[in-house]
Amino acid sequence: MTQIAAIIGGGVIGGGWAARFLLNGWDVRVFDPDPQAQRKINEVLKNARRSLPGLYEAPLPTEGQISFHDEISLAVQGATWIQESVPEQLDLKQKIYVSLQEHCSKLAIIGSSTSGFKPSELQQGARRPEQIMVCHPFNPVYLLPLIEVVPSKKSDLKIVERAENLLRTLGMYPLRVRKEIDAHIADRFLEAVWREALWLIKDGVATTEEIDNAIRYGFGIRWAQMGLIETYRVAGGEAGMRHFMAQFGPALKWPWTKLMDVPEFTDELVDMISDQSDEQSGMHSIRELERIRDNNLVGMIRALKAQDWGAGALLKVHDRLLNEKAAMAFTIDSLDLTAPIETVRRAVPLDWTDYNGHMNEARYLQAFGDATDRFMEIVGCDADYIQSGGSYFTAETHIRHVDEVHAGQLIRVETFCIEGAGKKMHLFHQMFEGDRMIASGEHMLIHVSLKTRKASVPASHIVAALEKVVEAHALMPRPDGVGRMVGKK
Amino acid sequence: MTQIAAIIGGGVIGGGWAARFLLNGWDVRVFDPDPQAQRKINEVLKNARRSLPGLYEAPLPTEGQISFHDEISLAVQGATWIQESVPEQLDLKQKIYVSLQEHCSKLAIIGSSTSGFKPSELQQGARRPEQIMVCHPFNPVYLLPLIEVVPSKKSDLKIVERAENLLRTLGMYPLRVRKEIDAHIADRFLEAVWREALWLIKDGVATTEEIDNAIRYGFGIRWAQMGLIETYRVAGGEAGMRHFMAQFGPALKWPWTKLMDVPEFTDELVDMISDQSDEQSGMHSIRELERIRDNNLVGMIRALKAQDWGAGALLKVHDRLLNEKAAMAFTIDSLDLTAPIETVRRAVPLDWTDYNGHMNEARYLQAFGDATDRFMEIVGCDADYIQSGGSYFTAETHIRHVDEVHAGQLIRVETFCIEGAGKKMHLFHQMFEGDRMIASGEHMLIHVSLKTRKASVPASHIVAALEKVVEAHALMPRPDGVGRMVGKK
Repeated sequence: MTQIAAIIGGGVIGGGWAARFLLNGWDVRVFDPDPQAQRKINEVLKNARRSLPGLYEAPLPTEGQISFHDEISLAVQGATWIQESVPEQLDLKQKIYVSLQEHCSKLAIIGSSTSGFKPSELQQGARRPEQIMVCHPFNPVYLLPLIEVVPSKKSDLKIVERAENLLRTLGMYPLRVRKEIDAHIADRFLEAVWREALWLIKDGVATTEEIDNAIRYGFGIRWAQMGLIETYRVAGGEAGMRHFMAQFGPALKWPWTKLMDVPEFTDELVDMISDQSDEQSGMHSIRELERIRDNNLVGMIRALKAQDWGAGALLKVHDRLLNEKAAMAFTIDSLDLTAPIETVRRAVPLDWTDYNGHMNEARYLQAFGDATDRFMEIVGCDADYIQSGGSYFTAETHIRHVDEVHAGQLIRVETFCIEGAGKKMHLFHQMFEGDRMIASGEHMLIHVSLKTRKASVPASHIVAALEKVVEAHALMPRPDGVGRMVGKK
Repeated sequence: MTQIAAIIGGGVIGGGWAARFLLNGWDVRVFDPDPQAQRKINEVLKNARRSLPGLYEAPLPTEGQISFHDEISLAVQGATWIQESVPEQLDLKQKIYVSLQEHCSKLAIIGSSTSGFKPSELQQGARRPEQIMVCHPFNPVYLLPLIEVVPSKKSDLKIVERAENLLRTLGMYPLRVRKEIDAHIADRFLEAVWREALWLIKDGVATTEEIDNAIRYGFGIRWAQMGLIETYRVAGGEAGMRHFMAQFGPALKWPWTKLMDVPEFTDELVDMISDQSDEQSGMHSIRELERIRDNNLVGMIRALKAQDWGAGALLKVHDRLLNEKAAMAFTIDSLDLTAPIETVRRAVPLDWTDYNGHMNEARYLQAFGDATDRFMEIVGCDADYIQSGGSYFTAETHIRHVDEVHAGQLIRVETFCIEGAGKKMHLFHQMFEGDRMIASGEHMLIHVSLKTRKASVPASHIVAALEKVVEAHALMPRPDGVGRMVGKK
């Protein structure tokens, strides 16, 4: 049954949560008295639809239904997850919990997006404090995986564990905070940097743009993949973390930072910062900046995915989960061999398009390469087999680009096996967007020994599986386009 | 004439500087009394050679010569740039300046890698304080572009400007710090986060791994592309930076962080942190972690390059500079048309390899696509022309994979134009590594109107240029492999 998420408060953060749930197949009910809420959430959804699906190699589930409600009771009844993202006023949050707990299930997860309050503060005055916890996300919620999950001593740990498991099915990373503390973990770091930045701007040491450049051209890129400690471990070199601390430790006594001392938040300081920010970024609207940001994040997270590291490694795990859910048939025995085999079903990622505004030609071959990998897996040439020293290398490829396709569109590849005997495997892939055939790829692959890098005969289970597919596919008419050469029919 | 950089102190940072200079064609002279210096620098160089060249689409200049010297005088004589990266002891640094200024040119740039000291402190006791400045890099120096350039009031601004221009030719980003201050800019932020992290670990709120995850799964990825302020500008939404500050400003008065209060640096705390770090990262050696880090950085910086943003935008500028230096002939008139045209010369980037350990099949097509783009540029279908509404789309491709190639190897593509008349352009690319022909790509392209997305006749200057190339190339024998189809000669 489709699960329901209630979104209480529909700004940028609530909208981001709504997008995460919806695009992962949940139904979403929004409660927000702001007459602009629907417009705001739709804008976040638009950004999410353009960037999230293409992060994955697997297709996301069918999108859920979103509805908007004037009564909090209608939003929370039957909801598995209730996410509160209203302004940071403790009494407002507490009032909302009182009101929604009259109508929601005792088993529902009530998560707060608060960046500052502790769960024990949120729980005060609540009818059932045990189901309330902090689930603090990071903007854009539809792309960044981190959720700080903070229970208090009153929290029901079974509900907390259920929340963490559900977050993983949404592709998120629940970081359980061991002890409740103001601002949890990440925002304490952000607050520290923000305070120091205010001083630097106020004292004329650096402008807003210089501060941003000092971050993004240096340690910011490092922190996207290893955090503070692992980076320092590497910096310590062969002598390791202990050596690093021996070097850096005493520096802590130096009066470098001004951090507890807070500059007066005067009109002059606010003007200075917002004027500098206008000069730095004012050439782009906020919408443009959001899209630029999302393009960058998608590209970088996918780059990390190729390395199976950091946020990219999380994404890989979620991809595997989605693949299982999509119930794609992996084994030769469970497949219908009387038709071409579906080997790819995915959205075109943002980073696959080029200056012509469409999917770049090399990405067609990338998708066909993925189709070949999936087909290899089906006939038994999987990761374990490759580990044991055998694989197929592509010797020759012919691609026809029949039609264009754009970021976000769903493509699928159907694979026809023309020949598969001895060292050879001859495949013909057709790529579709909806009913449109947009490209074909014909490939000759040669089985090789990864030790000698020379052609070799595959293992017997692969020979047998290929034979079975070739026999079945030989009964179908050959697809149009097989055996073409460039420039001639 | 080849320029000379003197590297005073050859640890991880000095080695990173050596690599930047060497791989950008400078000769490097190292002075470091440590008997391990040569080994340490060679290890950094190995990492740099594997990761830096492939960042670019253009080839780097021929690598310079490195030499090791027992006398500081021999290292600094004739050097344009002298970079000091010795341990953070002010008196040691000051003594070194006195000693090297006896032998170096008055015009030489003397940069210090210090992360803490102010230039006015470094200059005390120096014979010519005006040529000493802070040039503070970030590890790994061969990949991260940021250099904090800090002059004092005594600094000669002409020397400072020359330093900044030279840094740009090395692909680095000089950030001029307006007023000298302890720890410059970035390290003040790092120090703030480090202090807060020590408290969180000490108080049992988070482990080292949890702290790293709180950074890299959330704001770390954001900061790799937009810094602190631009990120908050976006978070403020349509109302912008002023609105964000109105919301967030008062939070500064809350007692969130413990930052000026420094935990006792006891043996227990050092043990706790290094034990946690071992548990988190101990399964990888430091060398492995360095390579993982470099793979990640290369992938992410190249992803940003595709978006022309942040560190990727800097890289694009440097690429253009390198292309001009490599003196690649861009115009039809300056080209030798009696031979195939060189359209690509580049190193294979780290992120182009796959689970088989060699360049992935799709990247062959990407390189051939780049070759096609370069050829289009040569015949006048350049960025301006595409902007005006015409372009070529690939209709059909045939690739023969003849041999493997690995990350870091230099590949080049030679392009032969078979046909170029009416709407058609028929190209044959051959890819080489050294003398090895490793692949061929045959492509039929169709000229299109970007408005109608339909085939159309190109502008007359393109027609004329193509005619000229085709006529010249028709006098050469056709390369072996033209007109092949998959599986048949």
